[in-house]
Amino acid sequence: MIRWWSTRTAVRFPPKRSRCGCASPRAVQVVGYHTKLQLTDIPEPKIHGPLDVIVKIGGAGVCRTDLHILEGQWAEKTGVALPYTIGHENAGWVHAVGDAVTNVKVGDKVILHPLITCGLCRACRFGDDVHCENSQFPGIDTDGGYAEYLRTTARSVVRIDDSLEPADVAAQVLKAISAATIVVVDRNPAAVQLAVEIGADHGIVADGTQVDAVLALTGGKGAEAVVDFVGEGGATAEGVAMLRRAGNYYVVGYGENIDVPTIDIISTEINFIGNLVGSYNDLHELMVLAAQGKVTLHTTKYPLADFQQAIDDLDAGRVRGRAILIP
Amino acid sequence: MIRWWSTRTAVRFPPKRSRCGCASPRAVQVVGYHTKLQLTDIPEPKIHGPLDVIVKIGGAGVCRTDLHILEGQWAEKTGVALPYTIGHENAGWVHAVGDAVTNVKVGDKVILHPLITCGLCRACRFGDDVHCENSQFPGIDTDGGYAEYLRTTARSVVRIDDSLEPADVAAQVLKAISAATIVVVDRNPAAVQLAVEIGADHGIVADGTQVDAVLALTGGKGAEAVVDFVGEGGATAEGVAMLRRAGNYYVVGYGENIDVPTIDIISTEINFIGNLVGSYNDLHELMVLAAQGKVTLHTTKYPLADFQQAIDDLDAGRVRGRAILIP
Amino acid sequence: MIRWWSTRTAVRFPPKRSRCGCASPRAVQVVGYHTKLQLTDIPEPKIHGPLDVIVKIGGAGVCRTDLHILEGQWAEKTGVALPYTIGHENAGWVHAVGDAVTNVKVGDKVILHPLITCGLCRACRFGDDVHCENSQFPGIDTDGGYAEYLRTTARSVVRIDDSLEPADVAAQVLKAISAATIVVVDRNPAAVQLAVEIGADHGIVADGTQVDAVLALTGGKGAEAVVDFVGEGGATAEGVAMLRRAGNYYVVGYGENIDVPTIDIISTEINFIGNLVGSYNDLHELMVLAAQGKVTLHTTKYPLADFQQAIDDLDAGRVRGRAILIP
Amino acid sequence: MIRWWSTRTAVRFPPKRSRCGCASPRAVQVVGYHTKLQLTDIPEPKIHGPLDVIVKIGGAGVCRTDLHILEGQWAEKTGVALPYTIGHENAGWVHAVGDAVTNVKVGDKVILHPLITCGLCRACRFGDDVHCENSQFPGIDTDGGYAEYLRTTARSVVRIDDSLEPADVAAQVLKAISAATIVVVDRNPAAVQLAVEIGADHGIVADGTQVDAVLALTGGKGAEAVVDFVGEGGATAEGVAMLRRAGNYYVVGYGENIDVPTIDIISTEINFIGNLVGSYNDLHELMVLAAQGKVTLHTTKYPLADFQQAIDDLDAGRVRGRAILIP
Repeated sequence: MIRWWSTRTAVRFPPKRSRCGCASPRAVQVVGYHTKLQLTDIPEPKIHGPLDVIVKIGGAGVCRTDLHILEGQWAEKTGVALPYTIGHENAGWVHAVGDAVTNVKVGDKVILHPLITCGLCRACRFGDDVHCENSQFPGIDTDGGYAEYLRTTARSVVRIDDSLEPADVAAQVLKAISAATIVVVDRNPAAVQLAVEIGADHGIVADGTQVDAVLALTGGKGAEAVVDFVGEGGATAEGVAMLRRAGNYYVVGYGENIDVPTIDIISTEINFIGNLVGSYNDLHELMVLAAQGKVTLHTTKYPLADFQQAIDDLDAGRVRGRAILIP
Repeated sequence: MIRWWSTRTAVRFPPKRSRCGCASPRAVQVVGYHTKLQLTDIPEPKIHGPLDVIVKIGGAGVCRTDLHILEGQWAEKTGVALPYTIGHENAGWVHAVGDAVTNVKVGDKVILHPLITCGLCRACRFGDDVHCENSQFPGIDTDGGYAEYLRTTARSVVRIDDSLEPADVAAQVLKAISAATIVVVDRNPAAVQLAVEIGADHGIVADGTQVDAVLALTGGKGAEAVVDFVGEGGATAEGVAMLRRAGNYYVVGYGENIDVPTIDIISTEINFIGNLVGSYNDLHELMVLAAQGKVTLHTTKYPLADFQQAIDDLDAGRVRGRAILIP
Repeated sequence: MIRWWSTRTAVRFPPKRSRCGCASPRAVQVVGYHTKLQLTDIPEPKIHGPLDVIVKIGGAGVCRTDLHILEGQWAEKTGVALPYTIGHENAGWVHAVGDAVTNVKVGDKVILHPLITCGLCRACRFGDDVHCENSQFPGIDTDGGYAEYLRTTARSVVRIDDSLEPADVAAQVLKAISAATIVVVDRNPAAVQLAVEIGADHGIVADGTQVDAVLALTGGKGAEAVVDFVGEGGATAEGVAMLRRAGNYYVVGYGENIDVPTIDIISTEINFIGNLVGSYNDLHELMVLAAQGKVTLHTTKYPLADFQQAIDDLDAGRVRGRAILIP
Repeated sequence: MIRWWSTRTAVRFPPKRSRCGCASPRAVQVVGYHTKLQLTDIPEPKIHGPLDVIVKIGGAGVCRTDLHILEGQWAEKTGVALPYTIGHENAGWVHAVGDAVTNVKVGDKVILHPLITCGLCRACRFGDDVHCENSQFPGIDTDGGYAEYLRTTARSVVRIDDSLEPADVAAQVLKAISAATIVVVDRNPAAVQLAVEIGADHGIVADGTQVDAVLALTGGKGAEAVVDFVGEGGATAEGVAMLRRAGNYYVVGYGENIDVPTIDIISTEINFIGNLVGSYNDLHELMVLAAQGKVTLHTTKYPLADFQQAIDDLDAGRVRGRAILIP
């Protein structure tokens, strides 16, 4: 099952390394729900276990999930104690490593798989990191990357060699690994235009005619797969209406309910597939595609201290590509 | 993806053939929604195409879908013109064949795959009969098997050699083809007991503690798969609560809506899979399992003219095994 | 499992239709092994069954298998009675159809799936045409397409809309449907150059250094998959030497034996996969890729009467792209 | 792809633990090829890395591969320096653990996955331990378990709760996880009888008629899969002759060459699959099946010092079940 985490955990490249380290490192923290994030000084994270890796953050993606966290959507699910540092899409340089770390060394440029996984449970042994029975999710249930330093482990770092810039990764990945006909639907005409420029076969502006447009493009049958990066504002009902018999509906964006009559599900044999994040190897392969130039990325950068501006711009739909906090 | 149609299209064996054929054959028809079925005389179906097969019905399963049809749940989906003959789970003997039929001959005892498929569209060529672009569904959108004769095609008949009796097929099939630990949940204690007798590892009476019971049996993790044969009365919410992270929810029964927050779907990466009917080869393999004694079936039989009693008994939960209309 | 039949059954497009049909149609036949093919008059094939299709041949590919047939390699396997008409890669126009044919009509331009299949056996019902239990293989075990007309059935014709020209299809298909790094190895420098021009990532001239070159390109690990279109002259030993641990070796070309120590097979867990032809749907999808311009084809054309020249040119390695016999 | 390692790495249970540890521990070592093994004193292995686990051996399986090692078949492949300790099928109790080990503790009863794997390479991250890029294979290329102690890592130990005894595991596993019809072929009538007693559907004594017998049992079509635990003495040619079109040939036993014409491989589309050992999770699931009583095991036990007798008995076909060296 394909996991559409690529846009959930966008790739970004760290700008030139700032070296100070004089004072306590700073971090942006959740101090309460329905209240603003705060920039504060925190102790520098230290190596605890032999596989620990401390990463000096070069860039931290700003994601709609960060807005949802502040809205309290994750509060009950994670039970995370406040305050904690937000930010689950991270890249940077290896700053320190535990005794048993062999796959990276201090100074390596790395992107982080979002989860910290144990490597020993049944799921990990199947290569299914995402369902590790002992996982932690920095930025969601433990300290994340809106910060100068973050602690993760050797299992979560992918070494990257080159500068990479973010954009509509999903359409490009699909183009690179399949011969599927790709239709991008978005309310924002500029986003649709960008998608077509970088590889989508068809672009549709969601102006109320989008379901009919998709049906027209598919001979009235509907799409074999719908990947829903929205999941709110009525997107799921429209997405289901775009789906072919026996089609797959990938749930990536979230907010509203999937609310579909069971008779519709069985009479057409459609499926719904939940997607959180991809595996470590998925991330590794994405980095290979990026290094080969098959996937390119666009970002808008903000200094860490301007985190509120980034959050506000994301919320208002003013960010083109991915907003990234940099040191 | 496993299709749980086995209980949707239960297997039954035709009793000794009654030979009369003197008068017009009878059929039980839908003459209106929210009104009773009627037994009526109809013309005997004839061979139209070279692959057509006329089956003399030996047994027709009475299914909850037949109740749903009368409630009008399928009216808009199928647009079937009334009156028409109901009954989508059929078996009997080959009565007549078209010129190009080579896989069965007159007199063969057969079970019918529920769909009539073209064999030439893309889905059929992938072996995915169920999504044939030109399919008909006797008993749903064309004349079915609450009747003395039914027209289908060579592609939909599976020859069977021996007597077969129905029961809780799904648990037995799972037992035969996997080493999965099977937990059966039902409100009816007798049904739970039967399930355990014929192969389920655990039986749970749904008395309000069933979610906790399933969690307890799975170390608090929930089940890897839930196969929901109910789909109404709150079953789906309970079923989702029983599901493990990354688990699969097979929708077979229907009636209410799947209504689940997208954040729950993505944070746990659960999936929903719609199931209508299995493929022709699935049916063929089920017949092999039955012939090997790995699956046995229980029925309660009613003469065709007593169709109303069968419908009423099903609606009231009075049928043990599968109700079958016989000539 | 991917089937590499695309180069075994190359695609070609029929030139403008010649209309005469006055005299008996001609065909090129095998009249004996280790002897030359003969051009002869034969009766025009007629519709026998309701799904039969008579195709007026527009182009028939000349394949190394045709040489192997004359060498007698297939004699015992097929037991075909001589004389019979050779030619298993065929395209043309529909000339006549049986009563039950609905997917094509007279005049349609079609490419032929190489096998005639029943559509009713277990393999066909799984979508696995290639292993039809009742298949015929025109050009191999029944009359083929080095002829003016050929009889096949509705199940074996794919309607094509546009002109298509053949070339190194395999590399282009891989490029279109995957992000794999493709290395083409050939003794002929011109063929290597062409492969790189149309999509291969690397080209290697097989001058004795090819195994080392592949190992160098793969960091010493070897290739994840080897698709061997040669299968003789020592190619298999070299191919196995190019293969990574747990790699897959696709056998397409043939002539010599696969002769590998079992200890090598188990210690590296390599696999060998036999490939005859792809499925009907594979062919259909290939036609879609061709129509989208993702796969293009090159041919060298010969009139049917010049069949011996085509055979000789193929045997001498003088054909660029695919040799095609045309009316 | 199913890996048939279960019989390669048979399960055995450690008898009651003998506690002495006074003197240097003993081990049986390869001191030269084509010469006898030697029992010698060696230093006790120590914890080196934080994930290391020292196992006190409770039982070490005696395998035909041990004979092949002495014949020098593996010498060039592994380049192992002599002397070293043989024995690759091991179980026992945890004797010491590194700082980062959390899945087992001293005293736990464990079975060992045969490989030591890194957990960080691409293969490991796919759950494909067997192809770890940094693997070691105790008993093959580093010190194994014909010894009192063995060093492995946390990634290679599966905790077991109950006593387990070995036998024809493969047939039982097939029976537990599938509805396949299982035919066991062996030269030894007693082995055939045992196989049928514990679950095989048919047993055939290989007296020269075995190919015909398999064809007769399969309606002349041959078997869908052949799992060859022999791989020498002509077994592979017979196995191929037993195989159906599109069938899979699993190579487990070894000794002779797979030597098959490519034309046979492509015309029937058969496949050959190399099998070394299963994954860690395969072993874990096998232990679950054993704990559920779905798989039982038979052994013949020898004290470690009687290793030569065990080797001789295996070579002469005198061992019923699996020979195990115990402390």
